[in-house]
This record gives sequence, C-alpha cells and structure tokens, in this order.
Amino acid sequence: MARIRDEMKRNRIIETAKSLFAKKGFAACSISDIVEESGLSVGAIYTYFKGKEDILRAIVDEGWLQFYDSLAGIMRSSDSPARKLSLLIHRFIPDLLEDVDLVHLVLTEASGLTGLREKVDILTDLLAEQIGELFDTSGFGSRFPRSAIRTAIVVLFLGITNTALLARTARLGVSLQEVLEFLKTTVETSLGISLDGEAPA
Amino acid sequence: MARIRDEMKRNRIIETAKSLFAKKGFAACSISDIVEESGLSVGAIYTYFKGKEDILRAIVDEGWLQFYDSLAGIMRSSDSPARKLSLLIHRFIPDLLEDVDLVHLVLTEASGLTGLREKVDILTDLLAEQIGELFDTSGFGSRFPRSAIRTAIVVLFLGITNTALLARTARLGVSLQEVLEFLKTTVETSLGISLDGEAPA
Repeated sequence: MARIRDEMKRNRIIETAKSLFAKKGFAACSISDIVEESGLSVGAIYTYFKGKEDILRAIVDEGWLQFYDSLAGIMRSSDSPARKLSLLIHRFIPDLLEDVDLVHLVLTEASGLTGLREKVDILTDLLAEQIGELFDTSGFGSRFPRSAIRTAIVVLFLGITNTALLARTARLGVSLQEVLEFLKTTVETSLGISLDGEAPA
Repeated sequence: MARIRDEMKRNRIIETAKSLFAKKGFAACSISDIVEESGLSVGAIYTYFKGKEDILRAIVDEGWLQFYDSLAGIMRSSDSPARKLSLLIHRFIPDLLEDVDLVHLVLTEASGLTGLREKVDILTDLLAEQIGELFDTSGFGSRFPRSAIRTAIVVLFLGITNTALLARTARLGVSLQEVLEFLKTTVETSLGISLDGEAPA
C-alpha cells in the first residue's frame, strides 16, 4: 500500500509540474508553485526529486519511454508495413497530440537535456526498417536514404506538433483531421503506396 | 537628413527589440532593456512607439510586409509555376530562415495579435493560384482542394521554421540543405512534377 501511495504522490508531482512548466515556462516556475498546485509539502517533493531540473528530466524520460513503448507496440502489432504506417498516422499521432504539454516541454525548455539527436536516430531506424520492408515486399527498390527519412521525421514531427500547439492560442483554421489527412497523403505519394483500407477500426 | 535620422533610430529600436524579445521572451523584456541595449533614451523610444506592445506590433507588421513583398516578387518573376515553386524553395525559404528571430516572435509571443488565420489565407490563395495554373497547363486536373493546400502550408511552414529554431539550441543532425531537399521532393511527389532544372542560379 505504501508503495502504491508513493507512486501516486510521485505521479501527482510529475503531472502538476508538467502542466505548470508548459503553462508558465520552466524558468518562471518554482518548487513552491508545485507545492501550491499539487497540495503536497515541500518535504514530500524533495523525497522524490532533487529539485526542479530533476523533475523536468523525469518528465522527459518517462514521456519518452511511453512514447517509445507505444511506437514499439504498433511495430509488433502487424506484419504489414503499410498497416503499421497507417496505425502510426491514425492512432499514434492523435495520442501524441493529446499530450501536447509534454511535447512542448521536450521541444523548448528541455531541448538541451533530452538527447534529441539520439531520439531522432532511434525513430529513423524504426521508420527506415518499415520502409525497407515495404520495398523488399513490393520490389520497388529503395530511393530513400537514411538522411532523407531523418529529415522527413524531424520536419513533419515539428510541423504537426507545432500546428497543434499553435492552434491552442491562435485561430489557424486547420483541424486535426486535416493534419492527419495531409500526413497520410504525403506518406502515400512519397512512398508510392496506398494506405486506404489500412485505417484502424 | 532629420527624416533619415528618425528612420534610423526607429529601425534601431525595432531591431534591438526583435532580438531581445526573441532571446528573453516578450514578457521578460522591459523598455529599459531596450534603452540599455540600443543606447537610445527612454524619451526617444516613446517618440516612436506607445509602449512594448506597440513595438511588437510594428515588428510583426513590417516583417509580414517584407515577407509578402518578397513572395509577390517571386510570383511576378516568371510565367512558369514550376519555376516559381522552385524559387520559393531555394530562395524564399532560406531568406526566411535567416530571420528566424522574427518567425519565432510571430509564432509564439505575437501569435494572438498577428491575425495568423488571415495571413494563412493570403498564402493559401497565392499557392492555390500557382497550383491551379500548373494543372491548367498540364491538363492534370485539380486534385488539390483549398483546405489541403492550407494544411500543407501550415504544417510544412511550422515544420521548417521550428527545425531551424530548434537547431539553434539542440543537436538535431539535420542541415538546411536537407530540409530544402525534403521540401522539393515533397512538392514534386505531391504535385507529380519535376523541379529539376528550375533551380535558381
């Protein structure tokens, strides 16, 4: 029971800090803000974390693990690369955009401490493997060097997440549905495949 | 002479404020920061602007005018839509990314006061016209509804500019050249055209 209670407290600190850092900015937030917002004591917070930066690191590390688990789950879920790409667009991206606070943190305040380049490398490997399989199967031959896949991931990821972020404060006139449709079409035309009929139920 | 001197002072305020707002954030900047950094007096600043928000508005309005003039110049520079799209990628985007401070300001601090939606509409019209001409000429028929063009502009613009912004503080392993190549390939495969041989000298 004590362990479950500990886990719940630790999660409460993380969730409170995540939303505060995203709202006010990491620099403008203090431990007392987290105390006030979470209803926990200063002592309780220092039981779990060494300080503000330690909380930020935990938020980013645990967020990345969730993110990666969810991706790996999709990669295991089917043998068809087209089906996996479709799940990526229609299940993974909407889930990701639900947690836009975390994305914002990782891409701004925490961009120095998150090892972004290594994470991009991991995502590139993952996607390159799918695209490789796709062309092994179809005999299309690979026109997609790793650097092109890497660039596409970075530009499209930042494009999609920043569209969602900006849509929170400004009228853009672009819906999530339209963003997913754009992504689907871009993947289809770039790879010369169709993802119709691959959409998850 | 007095008028030129006035113009120079006003520009100095704008350039100083642009770089300060981008560096420290709009909220954290005061008129005294601008005084200190520009070497001008408080009185001089209030001669030209009513306050901090007025300076921000001037930065955004004048930045947008330059941006739009440069786009309009490209649109007048040739009769070939493919040539114009190529200039957009190889001349306009690199110029835009030179002024990444302004882009950052417009997309964050000033996103509430810049009428982003109207600006996206203007860009959509401009691009829709080129794509329309392209398919009038080639007889390809338009598969590109306005909403798809609009979404592509927003996602790709935010993707490209945020890649440049993030590359300033984090190692991403993506170069400007790779971003431009990605954009070219995306435009080519989406529209089913080739932009080779259209690159500006």
